Amino acid sequence: MTSLIRNCVKNMSAYVPGEQPADVNVVKLNTNENPYPPSPQVRRALKMIKGDNLRRYPDPECGKLRAVIAKLHKCAETRVFTGNGSDEILALCTKAFVEDKQTIAFFDPSYSLYPVLAKIRNVKSRAIKLDKNFEWRMPPADAALFFMTNPNAPTGILYPKNEVAKFCRKSRGVVVLDEAYVDFSRYNCLDLALKLKNTLVLRTLSKSYSLAGLRLGYAIGAPELIAALYKIKDSYNVDRVAQELATAALRDQAYMRRNVRRIMAGRRKLSEGLLKLNFAVFPSETNFVWVKPQGISAEQLYRLLCRQKIFVRYFSRELTRDYLRITVGTDEQINKLIKAIARIMKMKAMEMENK
Amino acid sequence: MTSLIRNCVKNMSAYVPGEQPADVNVVKLNTNENPYPPSPQVRRALKMIKGDNLRRYPDPECGKLRAVIAKLHKCAETRVFTGNGSDEILALCTKAFVEDKQTIAFFDPSYSLYPVLAKIRNVKSRAIKLDKNFEWRMPPADAALFFMTNPNAPTGILYPKNEVAKFCRKSRGVVVLDEAYVDFSRYNCLDLALKLKNTLVLRTLSKSYSLAGLRLGYAIGAPELIAALYKIKDSYNVDRVAQELATAALRDQAYMRRNVRRIMAGRRKLSEGLLKLNFAVFPSETNFVWVKPQGISAEQLYRLLCRQKIFVRYFSRELTRDYLRITVGTDEQINKLIKAIARIMKMKAMEMENK
Repeated sequence: MTSLIRNCVKNMSAYVPGEQPADVNVVKLNTNENPYPPSPQVRRALKMIKGDNLRRYPDPECGKLRAVIAKLHKCAETRVFTGNGSDEILALCTKAFVEDKQTIAFFDPSYSLYPVLAKIRNVKSRAIKLDKNFEWRMPPADAALFFMTNPNAPTGILYPKNEVAKFCRKSRGVVVLDEAYVDFSRYNCLDLALKLKNTLVLRTLSKSYSLAGLRLGYAIGAPELIAALYKIKDSYNVDRVAQELATAALRDQAYMRRNVRRIMAGRRKLSEGLLKLNFAVFPSETNFVWVKPQGISAEQLYRLLCRQKIFVRYFSRELTRDYLRITVGTDEQINKLIKAIARIMKMKAMEMENK
Repeated sequence: MTSLIRNCVKNMSAYVPGEQPADVNVVKLNTNENPYPPSPQVRRALKMIKGDNLRRYPDPECGKLRAVIAKLHKCAETRVFTGNGSDEILALCTKAFVEDKQTIAFFDPSYSLYPVLAKIRNVKSRAIKLDKNFEWRMPPADAALFFMTNPNAPTGILYPKNEVAKFCRKSRGVVVLDEAYVDFSRYNCLDLALKLKNTLVLRTLSKSYSLAGLRLGYAIGAPELIAALYKIKDSYNVDRVAQELATAALRDQAYMRRNVRRIMAGRRKLSEGLLKLNFAVFPSETNFVWVKPQGISAEQLYRLLCRQKIFVRYFSRELTRDYLRITVGTDEQINKLIKAIARIMKMKAMEMENK
């Protein structure tokens, strides 16, 4: 009976998100969640939601929310698409912009969902290896769809804007700039999505707005691209609660900015702490740091931290297996982590001496 | 630049959901929403949600909610898939079970999203015309995927179970029995999804549980089919709030049953009222009635009701253009509707006399 399942689905492996342990005492630095709560305006909006209204379908086009996003980015509402998380938008892009014989391309390493999406869409994918130290390399411009996380994950590196712009301009397909982490960066590429006909910028409320639990992402770009996404989305893809709470969050830019500054301070503290332990620390423009441990393998450190209920992210593929991705937590979490690593390194050093 | 959009998307028309007027004074009988609020347990669960927890990703596998659904239907959790509305699950089925050269089939008329989903998936679709009076006809068994709304929409007719079972057994592909309205019916086909390897039953919280605004649907069936859906879904497809509120709603079966009984009483009242006006009324096992107006065209009646802020559903295609689909509302709404139609019919009769 396995022939009931489509071949490409049978042969693929699912994307595996970071662990979501039920234990609330875990120091959870593995999925780049914001350590601070969402805006008080979100909590207020949550209280205002009338359960009775949930019997009615939501606005299929998210009118109010789209208007707030359009105003925020000073663009027309026809340039805004809202989705059930950015992940939904990425999946829709593979359906809207890629013919069966065409290719989806992306950097490697980057968001490990991209090759999975290509497999689900059953088209070829091309992973473009980054330059040494995970730095920018001009990719070929011939893919029907190029997914680019910028700043990149899991490396935290922000690509040079003029290079990104040059690539978008010469690309023959659609370029999706996934700016999930861009609120933690010095600059963004939103203007490219407002100028170019082939470039979409994706944003999410999961990181800087502390709303990973809500699922709200949006795309900005040429009205023709946005209209194509609307054509193929599920009728009511964003529920009533998400529309209300996302609207409240986006209206409170000051709160978001304040939290971002706290996280950027934490990022400095975390980076300095790890540098002192002789780790290689890459220049991060996100809410996480990408590091190469010294004197211990990344995998072993990952496992030893797990045992102490400190979760960081380890990717076992060859390209990434010497590194760890660590979310910037609260000061307390950062202190705990640094102390735990220092202890582990000391033990490790003693072990070596005794050999 | 239109070549950026995939051909099948360029050439298709989007699914058009029923109007969602902002005006709350409308008598809204056009999208089969439940006229009664969700369970008090849902409102309580909503109050209990801590805004602060929204910073964390939801459980990607909806563990708690799945357990409640599994218990409700006395099946293993591996037989349960939860989605961002049933629409998401329908779209995932087209990706999981249909190869590029295969066919998606469905009855005609039925849920008008089905042909749109086939176009988005860029595969052939086959619409099987129902028997006279929209009754069951045994369809060919060779489609890779057959979408069957049962009881059917927009007709409200429940198909004979032995015939449905016979079809599922002989079908060479996957059969999806979309039981969105089945809580309003005399029987359901859930046992087929628990017995057969090729049959999925879909349920939704949008109708009988009064939670259309929340987006929660689920599928029950063979673990192999369910696992395929899990492989290709967005990582976090159901948000934290939806998981909590859906859990609360499903735990309060007594409340749902009580509301269903009220709606079934309303259905009798509405049907009798329309019969008295000489409308043909089809035997409904849903929360709406499918009727053929007499002495006035369906389209004209639809428009005249609109003017009085009474929204019903009109489908202009040839097969359905002589009919209206009317959601069962509250007693007050039913009275308003019947009176409005009676008035319109009287005017119409006078017009005819004066000619």
